[in-house]
Amino acid sequence: MNPEIDARRLQRELEELAQISEATPPTVTRVLFSEADLRARKYVRRLCQEAGLNWREDALGNQFARWDGRQPGAAVATGSHIDAIPNAGKYDGVVGVLGALEAIRALKRAGFRPLRGIELIIFTAEEPTRFGIGCLGSRLLSGALAPEKAADLKDGTGTRLDEVRQAAGFNGPLESVHLAANTYSAFIELHIEQGPILEKEGVLIGIVEKIAAPSTLRLRLTGVGGHAGAVLMPDRHDALLAGAEIALAVEAAARSSGSPDTVGTTGVFRIEPGAVNSIPFAAWLEIDVRDTQLETLKATLDRIERSAGEICLRRGVALDLQRLNLDSPATCDHRLVQAIAEVCRQAGVSHRRMISRAYHDSLFMAGICPTTMIFIPCRGGVSHRPDEYASPEQIETGVRVLAESLAAAADR
Amino acid sequence: MNPEIDARRLQRELEELAQISEATPPTVTRVLFSEADLRARKYVRRLCQEAGLNWREDALGNQFARWDGRQPGAAVATGSHIDAIPNAGKYDGVVGVLGALEAIRALKRAGFRPLRGIELIIFTAEEPTRFGIGCLGSRLLSGALAPEKAADLKDGTGTRLDEVRQAAGFNGPLESVHLAANTYSAFIELHIEQGPILEKEGVLIGIVEKIAAPSTLRLRLTGVGGHAGAVLMPDRHDALLAGAEIALAVEAAARSSGSPDTVGTTGVFRIEPGAVNSIPFAAWLEIDVRDTQLETLKATLDRIERSAGEICLRRGVALDLQRLNLDSPATCDHRLVQAIAEVCRQAGVSHRRMISRAYHDSLFMAGICPTTMIFIPCRGGVSHRPDEYASPEQIETGVRVLAESLAAAADR
Repeated sequence: MNPEIDARRLQRELEELAQISEATPPTVTRVLFSEADLRARKYVRRLCQEAGLNWREDALGNQFARWDGRQPGAAVATGSHIDAIPNAGKYDGVVGVLGALEAIRALKRAGFRPLRGIELIIFTAEEPTRFGIGCLGSRLLSGALAPEKAADLKDGTGTRLDEVRQAAGFNGPLESVHLAANTYSAFIELHIEQGPILEKEGVLIGIVEKIAAPSTLRLRLTGVGGHAGAVLMPDRHDALLAGAEIALAVEAAARSSGSPDTVGTTGVFRIEPGAVNSIPFAAWLEIDVRDTQLETLKATLDRIERSAGEICLRRGVALDLQRLNLDSPATCDHRLVQAIAEVCRQAGVSHRRMISRAYHDSLFMAGICPTTMIFIPCRGGVSHRPDEYASPEQIETGVRVLAESLAAAADR
Repeated sequence: MNPEIDARRLQRELEELAQISEATPPTVTRVLFSEADLRARKYVRRLCQEAGLNWREDALGNQFARWDGRQPGAAVATGSHIDAIPNAGKYDGVVGVLGALEAIRALKRAGFRPLRGIELIIFTAEEPTRFGIGCLGSRLLSGALAPEKAADLKDGTGTRLDEVRQAAGFNGPLESVHLAANTYSAFIELHIEQGPILEKEGVLIGIVEKIAAPSTLRLRLTGVGGHAGAVLMPDRHDALLAGAEIALAVEAAARSSGSPDTVGTTGVFRIEPGAVNSIPFAAWLEIDVRDTQLETLKATLDRIERSAGEICLRRGVALDLQRLNLDSPATCDHRLVQAIAEVCRQAGVSHRRMISRAYHDSLFMAGICPTTMIFIPCRGGVSHRPDEYASPEQIETGVRVLAESLAAAADR
C-alpha cells in the first residue's frame, strides 16, 4: 500500500486554520475556549465530517473523529491539539491534527480497509496558557488528573474550569471523560520537533523513545507598595525584586542540576500595580521545570522552592507557592518505535530515535496504551513563535510515515 | 479674616469624584484621557462653574478656573491633578484640586475680595502612567518640555500624544500651552505628604522647601524566544532574566549612591509572550530614579545604564534604552514658605519645613513663579494604593491654611 498525500490541500487547510486567531495572522493565538479556539474546533469538525468520520465530543471538549474498522474493539489513535499560546505559530499541534486527517483520507483514497478502527483525537488545552497546567484533555482522558481537581482549577481571573467549560457548551459530567481500559491499542502523535536536532543532522523523521516530564510552580508574592519617590530604599518590601531574584534562582538551579537536560523557565511574570512611580506590591510568577529524570527534576524543584522561601523571608515579602503538577517522564512503546522505524526504512526516509524535551498529550496517553511520537524538523528549532516553520515537503514526509504506521498498527 | 471651611461638602465631593474610576471604588484608576478621566474633568468643571469661577481649557487639557481680582495682572495660582495611576486612592492630587476649590469658596463666603486674581489649575497627566513621563501639563505650561517633543511622545500602544489629545477633544496648537512670563505671582499646591513624617511626628502641616528631582528610563530588551522544554539552558537569550538582573542593579545603585535620599524603582516590567511554557523573547521596563541632589542622581543613572549594557551584552539580549527625562530639583520660594509658616503660627497649627521626595507639578511651576507646597499627613505614609487615607480634620486644616495663604498672597 502506498498512500498518496494531497500536500497542496493540506497546506491550504493549515493556512485556513492559521487565519482563525486572536492575533493578526500569521501570528496565531488560540487560548482555551476563546472565540478563536471555538471557531477552530468547528473548522476541524467540518473537515472530519466531510471525510466521512464519525464525530463525538466529551464533557471537556476533547474531540474524536473515528473511521470504523472491520472488527470492533480497541482502535488505533492519533491526534494532537489546535490551541495555541499567545503569539505562536501555525504548526505546533496543528500538524498532528490536520496531518493525521490527511493521513486517514489518503488511506481511504488508497482503498485501505483497516481491521481496527482509526481514531483522530483533538485534545483540549494542551497548552497551559489559561489554567497554568498543560494537557488538560489527555490528563483527564488517561486518569492522570482527577475530575474534581480539574473542575476546581482557576484561570487568571479566578474563574473555575468547570464554569468555563460549561460556558463554552460542554456540559456533561467530567467523570465521563476518563477512557475505559483498552479503548486504544496504540497512540501515535505527529508533531514538529520544537528543537534543532533533526534540522542540524539533516534527518527527516524522529521517532520518540522518551518524553521529558514537566512540573509547574505558581507563585504569588505579596510585598508592600507605596509611592516610588516617598519610600526610602531600606524601608521597602518590593515584590518585583523578590520575583527577579527568584527568576534568577530558577536559572541557576536548572544550570547546576548536574544534568544538561534540566531546563527551568519563568514564563509568566506579572506585577501590580505596574506603574512607573509605584513600588510593586505584588508579583505573580509561573515557572516551568523539566527533566528526563524524575529524581533530578524533584531535586531542582526542591532547590527552587527553598531559594524562593529564603528570598521572600529576607525581603519581607509573603510567598504563596503551589506545585501545580509533577509528572513522570514517559517511556514510549518499543514495538511501536520499531514498527515506525521499519516504515521509514522501507520508504527510504532518513530517521533517528530521540528524546522529546517538550511534553505532549502523548506523555499521558502513554499511561493508557502503547504510545510514541513522530517528529519532523522545524526551521531553527523554533516553536511558540510566529516564525515557526516546517516546509510542505517535511510535513508531507511526516504525514506519509504516519499514514503507513497507522495502517500497520490497525492491521496488527 | 477667618474663612469657614465646609468640610462636610468637601468630603461629599471627594467621595463623588472617587466614584469616577476605571476600577471598582474605593480603588481609583483614572489614566490620562480615559473615559473616567474625561468624566472627572467634567465633574470638576461643573463644581468650579457653580462656584462662579471663569473657566478655560488649553490645548493639552490643562484646566483653569479663575476668580478675578480687583486689579488686573499676575494672579495667585493653586491646584493639582485628578488623574490617578492604576489601583490608586482618592486623595493624591484630588485634595489639592477640590480642597483648593473649597478654599476659594470659603474666601468668597467670608466676603473676601482679592486684589490679585486667584486661579485654580487642574494639570493634565501629573501621573506618568500613559506616556511614561509625569507632569506633562506643568512641563508644557512652564516650558520645561518643548511642544514638538511632547507631541511625539508615544503611549504603550505606540499612539502619539498629539493624536491622543486631539481624540480627547483638545485641538489647539500645543505651542499655545506655554504661559506668558508673569502670568502668576505665586503658586501654592496643597497635597497629601505621601510619606510618613508628619504622621510620625504628630505635625499637621508640612511646608515644602525643596522638591526631589525625578528621572525616568525606558528599556526595551529583545532576546530570543522558544519552547521552554526544547531550548537547553546554555542556548538561551532570555529577556526576562536580563530584565530581572537590571531591576536588581537599579536597587543596588540606589542603595549604594552614598545618599540616603536616592531611590530607584522598576515600576513597569512586562514580558512577551508571557506564557508558562515559552521563553520570554522581550521585556519592557520603566525605571524611576530620584534624588534631592542633581549630581547624585546623574551618577546613579550612569551606573544603572552601564549595568544594563553589561548585563544585556553578557546575555546576548539587545538593549534599547531611553532616558525620558532628567529634571533638576526645585528650591521653593523662601518668602512664600515664611508667609505660610506665619499663617500656621497665627492659627495655632503645628507645622514644619520639609523636603518633598515625591515630585509634583510644583517642581515645574517653580521654574516660572515663586512656588511652594502645603503637605498634610496621610495614614502610614501610604499613597498610590486604594487604602490611601487622610482624615476629614486633617484635610480641613490643610484647606484652611491654604485659604489664608492664598488670601495673603493675593493681597501682596
